[in-house]
Amino acid sequence: MSLTSPEVSAFADRVPAYLKRLERTTDALHPPAATDPERLHQAIRYACEGGKHLRALMVYAAGEALGVAAEKIDAAACAVELIHAYSLVHDDLPAMDNDDLRRGRPTVHKAYDEAIGILVGDALQTSAFEALATTEALDAEQKVRMIRALTHASGSLGMVGGQAVDMASENLTLTLPQLESLHARKTGALILVTCQLAGIAANASEATNQALEHYGKCIGLAFQIQDDVLDQIADTATLGKTAGKDLAQHKSTFPSLLGLEQARQRADALFDEARTAARNISGHADPLLWLADYIQQRKH
Amino acid sequence: MSLTSPEVSAFADRVPAYLKRLERTTDALHPPAATDPERLHQAIRYACEGGKHLRALMVYAAGEALGVAAEKIDAAACAVELIHAYSLVHDDLPAMDNDDLRRGRPTVHKAYDEAIGILVGDALQTSAFEALATTEALDAEQKVRMIRALTHASGSLGMVGGQAVDMASENLTLTLPQLESLHARKTGALILVTCQLAGIAANASEATNQALEHYGKCIGLAFQIQDDVLDQIADTATLGKTAGKDLAQHKSTFPSLLGLEQARQRADALFDEARTAARNISGHADPLLWLADYIQQRKH
Repeated sequence: MSLTSPEVSAFADRVPAYLKRLERTTDALHPPAATDPERLHQAIRYACEGGKHLRALMVYAAGEALGVAAEKIDAAACAVELIHAYSLVHDDLPAMDNDDLRRGRPTVHKAYDEAIGILVGDALQTSAFEALATTEALDAEQKVRMIRALTHASGSLGMVGGQAVDMASENLTLTLPQLESLHARKTGALILVTCQLAGIAANASEATNQALEHYGKCIGLAFQIQDDVLDQIADTATLGKTAGKDLAQHKSTFPSLLGLEQARQRADALFDEARTAARNISGHADPLLWLADYIQQRKH
Repeated sequence: MSLTSPEVSAFADRVPAYLKRLERTTDALHPPAATDPERLHQAIRYACEGGKHLRALMVYAAGEALGVAAEKIDAAACAVELIHAYSLVHDDLPAMDNDDLRRGRPTVHKAYDEAIGILVGDALQTSAFEALATTEALDAEQKVRMIRALTHASGSLGMVGGQAVDMASENLTLTLPQLESLHARKTGALILVTCQLAGIAANASEATNQALEHYGKCIGLAFQIQDDVLDQIADTATLGKTAGKDLAQHKSTFPSLLGLEQARQRADALFDEARTAARNISGHADPLLWLADYIQQRKH
């Protein structure tokens, strides 16, 4: 399935509108930058700017595949991006990955200060659950199911647990299963939950959810392998964040365990597996196929 | 209303059982300490130990006053304590209040490390919303209303905003209204929400909610004035946290603005006002009256 076939390009044509919806939802959720305390509210907005918003696009793509109206997944797309943004702000702190650059700009604690960095991350996490609790487009049961899924994906058994394992694994050589388990939690869980949230919005069948989750798991792992590859081969200007960090921090990566070429092949195989899963979804698979292509071709 | 009158002592008699319920709910929510990543899960449990659990007791007292079964507010009591615990762990970090002692023991980042401190706080916040989303004792609409109330109380317009204002106010002399506004957010919002959560569990009337909220606001402000007084007059061993910090950090406090004796009188007047509000609640006010007495008499 190529990016230029007419039916596939249809989702690509709608991407700007989806990103606009994301921006509007996020903007409406947060108090204006001039709201007291101003510095905090400015920094909250700063932390939400930039980024590729791949997770939000996955929510919209999965929602389209299942025939869900965009209103029903705006909150989910926004919530997942807010959890992602909070995790970046906290992971960049000096006590964590100590990074000065994110999305091509100074990290929050560099642009403001460390205390603001901690508080902005805290507030963004709160906003994520607020987005889901306050949307008017879902029934209460769906909101609760989404909040439950998001807490599971982002908590100590998901994203936060993965970050703890990542910190503890510096200077260790992990086995491939250990590395995959680390990333299934650190980045995979939040990518997987994008599919689960769309499934909840659609009240999808068990079979559909399973196919969609398989797609999400493959994309999540492929994405991380690709991240490791890009960290090794791309430059800082292209990435918008510090390149070559894994090596500098003595982290096990997919290229370090498999070799660069093998790592690339593994990622490609996973993207193919994701496409196969997408075609098994009883719906309109094109948005998910387009997204797999789009992520596969990213340079940062 | 004295602590020794038989009807009032009834709530006091039930306090140990309520604290046991809180412990059970919190324990069931978190993975066992031996769950991978172990260090994170140990630290999560460490952060939940100790403390007076006044906020949970307020949820139970307000629930009893409104005739709500304890099962219906277990999750709320647990969630409020988890938000409180997360805020303490993050506030104690070096970039924030930089404190080594909490609840009579080393703070999380001293007992473990700073990265674990950040991640434990993050995970505890997630758990708070998980507690509300996963309880089986409430209908979905009540869960959503509780989550919404808790995000409002704890986010950038509530607790996190108050902490940001507090950090920015070091070395400044605030006016009394500024100091009250700071604390209405930093500590008041989370105390107030204990009453709101009980009201939601009870599907209480507007009039009842208003009286209950007035009680919560008075207790919240009185509590903070008392905190400032205790910080000035008590020793570190009694407090279980570093005493005399406000002066050392050049913070405006109620005693510094009003004088010690006037501050005490203001707190006492607020406790009286809270008791009056409690008596206006169409229900059984005794648990709330007992709690006002109990907080008023605390030494730490």
